[in-house]
Amino acid sequence: MPKKNNEKENQIHKIRHSLSHLLATAVLEKWPDTKLGIGPVIENGFYYDFDFKKPIADSDLSGLEGRMKDLIKEKIDFKKKPISPAQAKKMFAKAIYKLQLVNELVKSKKPLSIYVSGKFTDLCSGPHVKNTSEIDFRAFKLTSIAGAYWKGSEKNKMLTRIYGVAFSTKQELEAYLKNQEEAEKRDHRKLGKELKIFTFNDYVGPGLPLWLPNGAAMIEELEKLAKEKEWKAGYSRVKTPHIAKEIMYKTSGHLPYYADSMYPPMILDENGQKVTYYLKAMNCPHHHQIYASEPRSYRDLPVRLAEYGTCYRYEKSGELFGLMRVRSMQMNDAHIYCTEDQFSDEFVAVIKMYLEYFKIFDIKRYVMRFSTHSKEGLGKKYINNEKLWIKTEKMVRDVLKKEKIEFVEVPDEAAFYGPKIDVEVWSAIGREFTLATNQVDFAVPERFGLKFTNEKGREETPLCIHRAPLSTHERLIGFLIEHYAGAFPTWLSPIQSTILPISEKHMDYAKEVKSKLMDSGIRVEISEANETLGKRIREAEMKKIPYILVVGDQEKQSNSVSVRSRQNKQMGEMSFDQFLEQIKKEIAERK
Amino acid sequence: MPKKNNEKENQIHKIRHSLSHLLATAVLEKWPDTKLGIGPVIENGFYYDFDFKKPIADSDLSGLEGRMKDLIKEKIDFKKKPISPAQAKKMFAKAIYKLQLVNELVKSKKPLSIYVSGKFTDLCSGPHVKNTSEIDFRAFKLTSIAGAYWKGSEKNKMLTRIYGVAFSTKQELEAYLKNQEEAEKRDHRKLGKELKIFTFNDYVGPGLPLWLPNGAAMIEELEKLAKEKEWKAGYSRVKTPHIAKEIMYKTSGHLPYYADSMYPPMILDENGQKVTYYLKAMNCPHHHQIYASEPRSYRDLPVRLAEYGTCYRYEKSGELFGLMRVRSMQMNDAHIYCTEDQFSDEFVAVIKMYLEYFKIFDIKRYVMRFSTHSKEGLGKKYINNEKLWIKTEKMVRDVLKKEKIEFVEVPDEAAFYGPKIDVEVWSAIGREFTLATNQVDFAVPERFGLKFTNEKGREETPLCIHRAPLSTHERLIGFLIEHYAGAFPTWLSPIQSTILPISEKHMDYAKEVKSKLMDSGIRVEISEANETLGKRIREAEMKKIPYILVVGDQEKQSNSVSVRSRQNKQMGEMSFDQFLEQIKKEIAERK
Repeated sequence: MPKKNNEKENQIHKIRHSLSHLLATAVLEKWPDTKLGIGPVIENGFYYDFDFKKPIADSDLSGLEGRMKDLIKEKIDFKKKPISPAQAKKMFAKAIYKLQLVNELVKSKKPLSIYVSGKFTDLCSGPHVKNTSEIDFRAFKLTSIAGAYWKGSEKNKMLTRIYGVAFSTKQELEAYLKNQEEAEKRDHRKLGKELKIFTFNDYVGPGLPLWLPNGAAMIEELEKLAKEKEWKAGYSRVKTPHIAKEIMYKTSGHLPYYADSMYPPMILDENGQKVTYYLKAMNCPHHHQIYASEPRSYRDLPVRLAEYGTCYRYEKSGELFGLMRVRSMQMNDAHIYCTEDQFSDEFVAVIKMYLEYFKIFDIKRYVMRFSTHSKEGLGKKYINNEKLWIKTEKMVRDVLKKEKIEFVEVPDEAAFYGPKIDVEVWSAIGREFTLATNQVDFAVPERFGLKFTNEKGREETPLCIHRAPLSTHERLIGFLIEHYAGAFPTWLSPIQSTILPISEKHMDYAKEVKSKLMDSGIRVEISEANETLGKRIREAEMKKIPYILVVGDQEKQSNSVSVRSRQNKQMGEMSFDQFLEQIKKEIAERK
Repeated sequence: MPKKNNEKENQIHKIRHSLSHLLATAVLEKWPDTKLGIGPVIENGFYYDFDFKKPIADSDLSGLEGRMKDLIKEKIDFKKKPISPAQAKKMFAKAIYKLQLVNELVKSKKPLSIYVSGKFTDLCSGPHVKNTSEIDFRAFKLTSIAGAYWKGSEKNKMLTRIYGVAFSTKQELEAYLKNQEEAEKRDHRKLGKELKIFTFNDYVGPGLPLWLPNGAAMIEELEKLAKEKEWKAGYSRVKTPHIAKEIMYKTSGHLPYYADSMYPPMILDENGQKVTYYLKAMNCPHHHQIYASEPRSYRDLPVRLAEYGTCYRYEKSGELFGLMRVRSMQMNDAHIYCTEDQFSDEFVAVIKMYLEYFKIFDIKRYVMRFSTHSKEGLGKKYINNEKLWIKTEKMVRDVLKKEKIEFVEVPDEAAFYGPKIDVEVWSAIGREFTLATNQVDFAVPERFGLKFTNEKGREETPLCIHRAPLSTHERLIGFLIEHYAGAFPTWLSPIQSTILPISEKHMDYAKEVKSKLMDSGIRVEISEANETLGKRIREAEMKKIPYILVVGDQEKQSNSVSVRSRQNKQMGEMSFDQFLEQIKKEIAERK
């Protein structure tokens, strides 16, 4: 992670905050009977919440923006003044939202202050720029209007939120807007629909993606990749059910800690007794049962159990977002049971597997976030065993340092059963995604009584590493859609080649070519000659198909294909066998 | 299915029934204060339920059997006599269970009769042999004792049931007992545990198998096979969630028809509204949603959607049985949406796929049971559209006849949405399994409003074929364990080869051989030299591993392996490359 320039960060924070006040100033000038909510700084910009008498529209934004630019040019000072509770209550007597904030601050005995900028005064603790001359008027933009409940609660009134983005320079703003535009073009929800990768459905429910044939083909390829790598790395595959009895999650400690994130229980009547089942929200406890299914000796360790298990987590419907926040997820999951002595090697092997995948997916920028416990969280957020936390965290830290793996340490963000590493990656257009996670578990194996016989014939509890380098299919494919803008490398492309017979009479040859490609496992389709060639080429390009094969009289006669690659590169006529060899090689090498 | 010899069947039925009376005779002679339950004929034999004053043991069976043989030799007549309700009530006044039966028969106005054989009299409507001389005293055997509730209800008293088997001849009995012994040896629950294929677990719940690495390896192979065949047959793969909203199953008609077989609902609070979700008990409605996700034209049909989807069905815990009756099942599922014109071709292609699989698994005996509707069931068990039933059943019947596929027609056993074909197969030791099912659905696509545009531009509803030639993983693997007695063909073997280094110093070469085999995707393990070679060979044989590779000085020097195949066939030393080629070929060809 790039080191942050604190001074610059502070200054841009002040600029954004001041712009939110200028926005409120402009709004009040135009609609003086508007009530103000709050106007904080957010990532890349700011917003302000308003209670308008009459609704405003997107078309109002440019007027407000223009007035803000004028205000900036007026070189207005921002001045902070402390005020007493009595003064504050009087000053904001008619500003119902502000008055509520005043009362809350007074109640919690926090100091009160206002900021004055020209004719505008706001309840605010700052900080702000000293003078609007510090703001580049070309470096901000009001972007959108949205509804937002006062204080974020559905019980309160819906206010109107105006969003803006702001940077230090015009160039930065332009780069940001361009990036946003590119991100919108690459939006996985939009492309996922256009490329027929996945769909959602009202009968099935929100957050539960249905993978269409194109998406399922990608999933097959990703699983094939994972299985290959895990086979080489000595993993064993297992398969476990999607449900388990309540007692499992009570024993693991997920219940009650994790109850809010799980689907509600299914209560069965078993011979007159109530038995409660839950959908699994994670695969670990099931894998622990497989570990426990036979006696283990130190000679058997490490035991590495892998499964593409589908888990179900309850996310509020408002928090669902395409494939990035879902309720069903197929995890590239594995659990490695090992001795303390084996820990370093196993942990390093896992990290190296991440790096291999980054190479395959052309991920150039990433960071390993090492999340540790906090003393205060012990017994609450975290298993209450400080000594073990410190010991395990040291093990992880030592491995990372020894292997010279870059990481940032984040206190108080561990899993409840041990420290973890979250891997953040940046897509080709520079957006950040938290993809994978890698956790050390020193608590749950004990709870399930997992054991192995050590060299001295005594029973010991193994450590457990949870790892998912390829994340979930949902999150990974969401990321890859943006990363590749839907133009996946050939091995991952849902359709790898499309055949265009020039006219109906070349259909037989097209079918022959298709059948031969399919024999080699290549995903191929025929685009029938009921449209012009030009139109069909454009269609195939829209579908981002890597290879377009045009076949006519000449190709049929010479048993060849005329190849056009996705980069719109005319590769010309080549023998069918040559094309087949070439595409097979490209797929096998995952280029 | 072999045509039944009715006369012979009737006679053996009479023999079995008469033996149950002789059993009761022998019991009453020895323990006169025993109360009698019922004594019917069952498959291969008979039983009688008794209420003993004191419990009896397995060791009592031979004494009873001996007395029964003597009774047979006494050439006792069986005579039927009608009796009046008053006579019956008097006769069975002290036989509390019989009296209950008498009262029930009187209430339902059924005629009453008794059977007298020597000193024994039973309430019975027969039929029986005329004289015990018709019974071969060497052709029956009392086999076991079990507890059984009176009338099968947990609310009643637990009686003692004595089971017997009986045949026409001594030879038939011996063949049956030998077969039983073989079946016990091949019991998939026993072998499944010994070969570490699957396990059950109390935390997870009954009927929910956890697949151990060996089982998961078999699953991978079966899925690979299915995917290959389905790829060639033009199927598209999809992936769908394991849950859906209640409305889906109400629309499909599974609710309320099928509610008892589904897991109980999960009730979510979504923004203050109760939304009910169910675990899927079948994949069809999810696939219908994928069909519905885009407009379809007759040109797109047939659409064949395939998924190894895991379904959950609630079976009473008493009905669970190893892998054969489970609560979670991974189905080799697909749904084919086609026009009426395409139906025959699609249906034949599916049936032919079954036959291909039978060949691969060396299944020599099978029968297609064609289940049709009944007039009485319309609107109750079956969708109420007689015309459509008759039409669809005719389509299926015509296809089967045209293609000369043997089948038996079974009235009143269809699915609620259409006729079906259940495929019954016989294992190598002659036991019958209902493996796969193949259903025509003319009702549910309509309910979900599935459409395609026909050649005239009008909307039509497609037919849907449900098919699962490879059944569920659970049922198929359960069958295959018995069928192969755990000695699976190499391609399907969880461990395909084990390497035995003669001593510790050959470990390096053993590892080298292992690594090279693994590079070719062969599942291989090393049996370390901490036991004698003989013991390790026996262990590998117990695990039914197809190839044992012994490696010592000589093998190391010449880069070879000494091969022992599972059939205990010494194949001698061969070059490693030769062995590799041979096993790869065998696996690729699924021999």
